[in-house]
Amino acid sequence: MLYDLIIIGAGPAGITAAVYSARKRMKFIVLTGDIGGQAAWSGDIENYTGYQFVTGPELVSKFEEHMRKYSMDFHENEEATGIDKSGDIINVKTRKGEYLAKAAIIASGKVSRELGVPGEKEYKNKGLTYCATCDGPLFSGKDVAVIGGGNSALDACLQMMKIARTVYLINNTDSLGGDAVMREKVQNATNVKIYNGAKVRAVTGDKMVSGITVRTKSGEETIPVQGVFVEVGLVPNSSFAGAVERNDRGEIKVNCRNETNIPGIFAAGDVTDISEKQIIIAAGEGSKAALSAFRYINRSR
Amino acid sequence: MLYDLIIIGAGPAGITAAVYSARKRMKFIVLTGDIGGQAAWSGDIENYTGYQFVTGPELVSKFEEHMRKYSMDFHENEEATGIDKSGDIINVKTRKGEYLAKAAIIASGKVSRELGVPGEKEYKNKGLTYCATCDGPLFSGKDVAVIGGGNSALDACLQMMKIARTVYLINNTDSLGGDAVMREKVQNATNVKIYNGAKVRAVTGDKMVSGITVRTKSGEETIPVQGVFVEVGLVPNSSFAGAVERNDRGEIKVNCRNETNIPGIFAAGDVTDISEKQIIIAAGEGSKAALSAFRYINRSR
Repeated sequence: MLYDLIIIGAGPAGITAAVYSARKRMKFIVLTGDIGGQAAWSGDIENYTGYQFVTGPELVSKFEEHMRKYSMDFHENEEATGIDKSGDIINVKTRKGEYLAKAAIIASGKVSRELGVPGEKEYKNKGLTYCATCDGPLFSGKDVAVIGGGNSALDACLQMMKIARTVYLINNTDSLGGDAVMREKVQNATNVKIYNGAKVRAVTGDKMVSGITVRTKSGEETIPVQGVFVEVGLVPNSSFAGAVERNDRGEIKVNCRNETNIPGIFAAGDVTDISEKQIIIAAGEGSKAALSAFRYINRSR
Repeated sequence: MLYDLIIIGAGPAGITAAVYSARKRMKFIVLTGDIGGQAAWSGDIENYTGYQFVTGPELVSKFEEHMRKYSMDFHENEEATGIDKSGDIINVKTRKGEYLAKAAIIASGKVSRELGVPGEKEYKNKGLTYCATCDGPLFSGKDVAVIGGGNSALDACLQMMKIARTVYLINNTDSLGGDAVMREKVQNATNVKIYNGAKVRAVTGDKMVSGITVRTKSGEETIPVQGVFVEVGLVPNSSFAGAVERNDRGEIKVNCRNETNIPGIFAAGDVTDISEKQIIIAAGEGSKAALSAFRYINRSR
């Protein structure tokens, strides 16, 4: 079975690529771990043109409905683990199989950066999470820690201070970053305790998280919490990308036509080295990549 | 009065740039002839991610509402007639005035190409139009001609064959272009008469259009019509752009960050040499241009 196109990922870029590919009647498959990517974890979205106000999950469900209007091979819970090219054929591997196509679009987005401390892997989904939007409601009335000091940490903090009893914001730099508007709201909240210049050393617990060990200027202390929200940035989901060229941040290098260094392999959205990461931009890039792939396939026939 | 930014145009790219600029709290003005640009003339839109089905005017009204949520200086019916830079200051001229800013985004889109035949200017808006979506309903039950043979001519034809009595499709090549699906619908319609290899020589009439003179292989004939829809392509609206570099089609050359050859002047959307012209792409480009302009302004402070 030879596809015209394999789309890796189903965030705003991958979904838009799928819509355009369906309308061009390409024979294609989408391979993805999840639907919506980072957009699904977003709180309120006010800058996707045409939607004055929408939540991340709402926008993702509109995207998904739009895509599902068209028939296509769609494999969820099936992430790419490798990609290479032999002759003119692109080969994409997953844990479940191997797929062949004339072209591929990598739109695998970014994933949360890990803290890299003892207890993190052990308590993942046992009180430790990378997504306040998804898991926040589980911690109603509890004490939680948000780790980080940029916009995504502030966003998690703004969400959790309405739900949790006390929010400890653990920031390893001397002062909070992020947008002034969000920072001020967090600083003025009565149930948020900000630790600046503080490093998390370990996540502790029994079956579930029971605390974090933090090193501050005055020494080491353990803060009892039932929830830990890790918000220390994102890394591109590109480790499977083999010989596809990346920059020193691991982002796939693309030109304005979404071409990578390997003819027939295109990339779009937050996994690429595009200057700005925004939902509306990723969607546009997905469209552009699909049209570039369509042109490539028809040229090489 | 020195603005941070002047946005020229209010189609999908200009509107998205305005939303992002407002959210970055830049002090900016939008100068534009119309709202929505080509999107406002579009029939059905099925490929703007998140809207499975929307008409051009509906999508434009959602865009406009979104933009109007923010306060900004917005001058409609005021097209740019010139742009230049002196020192660090960008100067944009219109027929009504002159505006100064630290940066500018050209998002002036494309306009309809003219036929260039006698009677065209005389009967413009007196039966002759470049927009079936806007003006089609005026020709209910009448005989009309659509001039062109590509997708936009087919789209006009599909719209008019439901409204008009007879539609004459005047195509100057040997066979129709455009998408197969649309072409077949037009070819199967009982009230569409297709003239291939036919050139319009003149638009005739008295106070209003009464006919077109057409040269075919068998000679010249006059077809009596009350409406003429010119759909022979688009040209970038860039003639005012002075020293801003353009390609041989008149499109403004930009890099992936929407920078033109003049630092501080950015461009986005269909007026640029971007490889694909789509609403979702233009919107993404508008966002990117606004964020690039924001970074430029803050760097140069």
